Amino acid sequence: MRGSDFLQLDPEPVGRGARTEWLTLRLRTAILDGALGIGSRLPSSRVLAEDLGFSRGTVAEAYRRLTEEGLIAGSAGAGTTVVAAGLLSARAAGRSAAASAAAPAATPAGAPAGRSDAWVEVPGASHDAVPSSLPHADVIDVATGLPDLAAFPRGAWLRAEREVLATATARQLGYAPPEGTVELRHELSGWLARSRGVVAQPDRIIVTGGVTGALSLVAQLLRDDRSVPIAVEDPCAEGSRRILRHWLGEVTPVAVDRDGIEVRRLSASGARAVLVTPAHQYPTGVVLSPERRREIVAWARDGGNLVIEDDYDAEYRYDRRPVRAVQPLAPDAVAYASSLSKTLAPALRLGWLVAPEHLHPRLVELRWAIDLGSPALPQLTLAHLLRSGALERHLRSMRVRHRARRDAALVALREHLPGCSVVGIAAGLHLVIELADGVDDERIAADARAEGVLVQPLGRHFAGVGRPGLVISYAGNHPARVQRAIEVLAHVIHRRGGTLAAS
Amino acid sequence: MRGSDFLQLDPEPVGRGARTEWLTLRLRTAILDGALGIGSRLPSSRVLAEDLGFSRGTVAEAYRRLTEEGLIAGSAGAGTTVVAAGLLSARAAGRSAAASAAAPAATPAGAPAGRSDAWVEVPGASHDAVPSSLPHADVIDVATGLPDLAAFPRGAWLRAEREVLATATARQLGYAPPEGTVELRHELSGWLARSRGVVAQPDRIIVTGGVTGALSLVAQLLRDDRSVPIAVEDPCAEGSRRILRHWLGEVTPVAVDRDGIEVRRLSASGARAVLVTPAHQYPTGVVLSPERRREIVAWARDGGNLVIEDDYDAEYRYDRRPVRAVQPLAPDAVAYASSLSKTLAPALRLGWLVAPEHLHPRLVELRWAIDLGSPALPQLTLAHLLRSGALERHLRSMRVRHRARRDAALVALREHLPGCSVVGIAAGLHLVIELADGVDDERIAADARAEGVLVQPLGRHFAGVGRPGLVISYAGNHPARVQRAIEVLAHVIHRRGGTLAAS
Repeated sequence: MRGSDFLQLDPEPVGRGARTEWLTLRLRTAILDGALGIGSRLPSSRVLAEDLGFSRGTVAEAYRRLTEEGLIAGSAGAGTTVVAAGLLSARAAGRSAAASAAAPAATPAGAPAGRSDAWVEVPGASHDAVPSSLPHADVIDVATGLPDLAAFPRGAWLRAEREVLATATARQLGYAPPEGTVELRHELSGWLARSRGVVAQPDRIIVTGGVTGALSLVAQLLRDDRSVPIAVEDPCAEGSRRILRHWLGEVTPVAVDRDGIEVRRLSASGARAVLVTPAHQYPTGVVLSPERRREIVAWARDGGNLVIEDDYDAEYRYDRRPVRAVQPLAPDAVAYASSLSKTLAPALRLGWLVAPEHLHPRLVELRWAIDLGSPALPQLTLAHLLRSGALERHLRSMRVRHRARRDAALVALREHLPGCSVVGIAAGLHLVIELADGVDDERIAADARAEGVLVQPLGRHFAGVGRPGLVISYAGNHPARVQRAIEVLAHVIHRRGGTLAAS
Repeated sequence: MRGSDFLQLDPEPVGRGARTEWLTLRLRTAILDGALGIGSRLPSSRVLAEDLGFSRGTVAEAYRRLTEEGLIAGSAGAGTTVVAAGLLSARAAGRSAAASAAAPAATPAGAPAGRSDAWVEVPGASHDAVPSSLPHADVIDVATGLPDLAAFPRGAWLRAEREVLATATARQLGYAPPEGTVELRHELSGWLARSRGVVAQPDRIIVTGGVTGALSLVAQLLRDDRSVPIAVEDPCAEGSRRILRHWLGEVTPVAVDRDGIEVRRLSASGARAVLVTPAHQYPTGVVLSPERRREIVAWARDGGNLVIEDDYDAEYRYDRRPVRAVQPLAPDAVAYASSLSKTLAPALRLGWLVAPEHLHPRLVELRWAIDLGSPALPQLTLAHLLRSGALERHLRSMRVRHRARRDAALVALREHLPGCSVVGIAAGLHLVIELADGVDDERIAADARAEGVLVQPLGRHFAGVGRPGLVISYAGNHPARVQRAIEVLAHVIHRRGGTLAAS
């Protein structure tokens, strides 16, 4: 009698050609429902195949699909286990833990209160939300602001790390200075000068946990100094706003127009600090104009205020001349933060901060007090990649790759949404489709999700009502999938009445 | 005419057999004096050999020695650069930067104010100080609380990381939950239960930047709650005290006797929280007795107080039965922190916190706000090592290695300091030699340094005057070097009048 104790699976009614689909569906359902919680061990494919009377290849294929979906993970010698949870089990966990942030991995801490939708924030440098479950096997995710992670330079990274470990001295494997290893700060000093025009000696660089780590350090200092309020662009990355609100309470939104943040409104706001994304405004993509740059530097110097420059994906420019950072105009008034999360991967949490000299010592002390500084080994590995030129080669190939995806998005937009207003296409990893006033972009995004496409509504990045639109992150998807996503979005938009903004 | 432009080196007077020594000395002097600052590039060995008329092997040997000393580092394709600075150049940098903490790597932030000695603190979980310069080529360092870093399992680590990268999904390379990857928390749950008896489901573990990161998180929460004062053991690790003082202002020292912290004094102190090292008190090495464990749990529960358990090197026990953590006695009242910095390397900054349920959500939110959480890739790699059993195998071999070094220390003590009182030998990575009252252990340490041995005075770990002694960290040195260090220390002690405590 065929059948498994595991999940009480009964294969009798299943047609031979449908076995893989059936098994994949049964397992996926059990995981998303919570019947198989995180950490549950699945039987080996050999054992389950025997129990069900299936070929081992059938079971292995089902496991492979679920691994691709990020629901399970296997390793030689330790078996296959469930590594993610679905929305239902996450919600149940959430209720039982009294809205604790200890819900399983699929609902990270910081989920916006009151949002019953499956949208979950991955705050901070990611700038975008990640859905808490995968209702379809073939969901296209243009919501998450990730680079093409399939292109992470695994070989180059491992070779560099091997070289580092082969030559590392005991000092290098011990405790690095809290501001970061001298090896990486030395390379970054040159890299930042070459790539962004940033002025920074190695001893003025602080290695942080990504851009968010840098932002958090500065915010804590502002809090200690009572240098409030802090202004943010409106719209701005919701994750950044939430980080700043954690440390500083409320933030002051200042409107952004085609030239970037409106510095006159900033001056009138009474803010003592401001967070800006000058090279490629998030999410609108505009570049802070030369005049606005002069104005914001004057505002900072005249008032003893601080400009925090988030240079998050400035490496990716396609159709325009390079745009220098603001920092070199006024290193005494600008705290510059960037990372390589968009070029390597967020999994490395490698970022840096170049702060005005008068703030530097206190920032280093704070970095020390938080956890003695970032891990040395990834820093040494990155330093190696910078020194050898491998990182710059990788960046060039990523730029080509991302450009192709951007171009595919534009082709699809011309075909499926002709005449729509698109912004931010000259650089970065995302673009914005503007929708007509009054359109409910949250509803459009929900409709899209039902059709298997995850996209960010623009409106949630505004402090107030804002303007409706869709933020399409194209970099993380194969060009054909980007185009398919746009086709679906166009369909959804038209179904709601062709609600595009005049371009 | 032989001679290099580089440093204006003139080899003419140098005897053939003295070339390596001469070049090593000239380069070392230039680095320690600051003539060659951090980041300065050295000529390739080929070029310098040609200029000086030396064999290439001579120059390569000089470079190798300086690399061993941690002063320079080279990599294929990028040349050799200076990576550390000496005390003189560090002091000069310190003065010019107005006591800024931006001094070169050799003087990390947090250097104790007013200390003119070369001792520089590497605070927090390291528990020990690191000298800012290396006055001799052959200094024996028994001051720094590091494990045997030469034994870092480079091959196993790289293999595990390769496997992780080969199978990692996009989700795993993206943003991990702030509390840490589910993969690592799952493995840690089992590991902590097996190795320490700690009670922790995966969703109650928070991955932090080492034990210091865990301590810092809890301290920030206590500060926000005004749950002060916090008590510390007296003596305790100076680094831990400094971290707590950063976040909480003053700390309340509570004496330690042969059974561990004196809980009656703790009760009388009015403290609302306490940091303890129950498995192997730092620095005395005593174990918190069963009765004291019951008392401290009662103190916590009766008063709604918090015990913070720093389980920093509990894996290393030699002569005694395993000692369970305190946490399982009262998971509701104990915040447990440990790491694998003493088994792998501090370069990884991998630690964890298991906190009482009522504190967990706020700690996760704080972890998020700091920098979105620890890097995922090292976490996934460690999870792999735990899952495959490689970490436990490595730990067993490290235990054998460290035990041999401890035994060598004991042999040397019996030979050179017979009758001295030694504590803390049953476990851990260090032992303490107690000196007679009134002895100036700082002076003994300074004398030892002049003789090429770096050792920590015990007195600086006390809040007040304390008792004099020497903390000898044996784990990071070959047994013969440990013995040589003890021989030198004995010589120094006897020169000062045979000033040992009665044992």
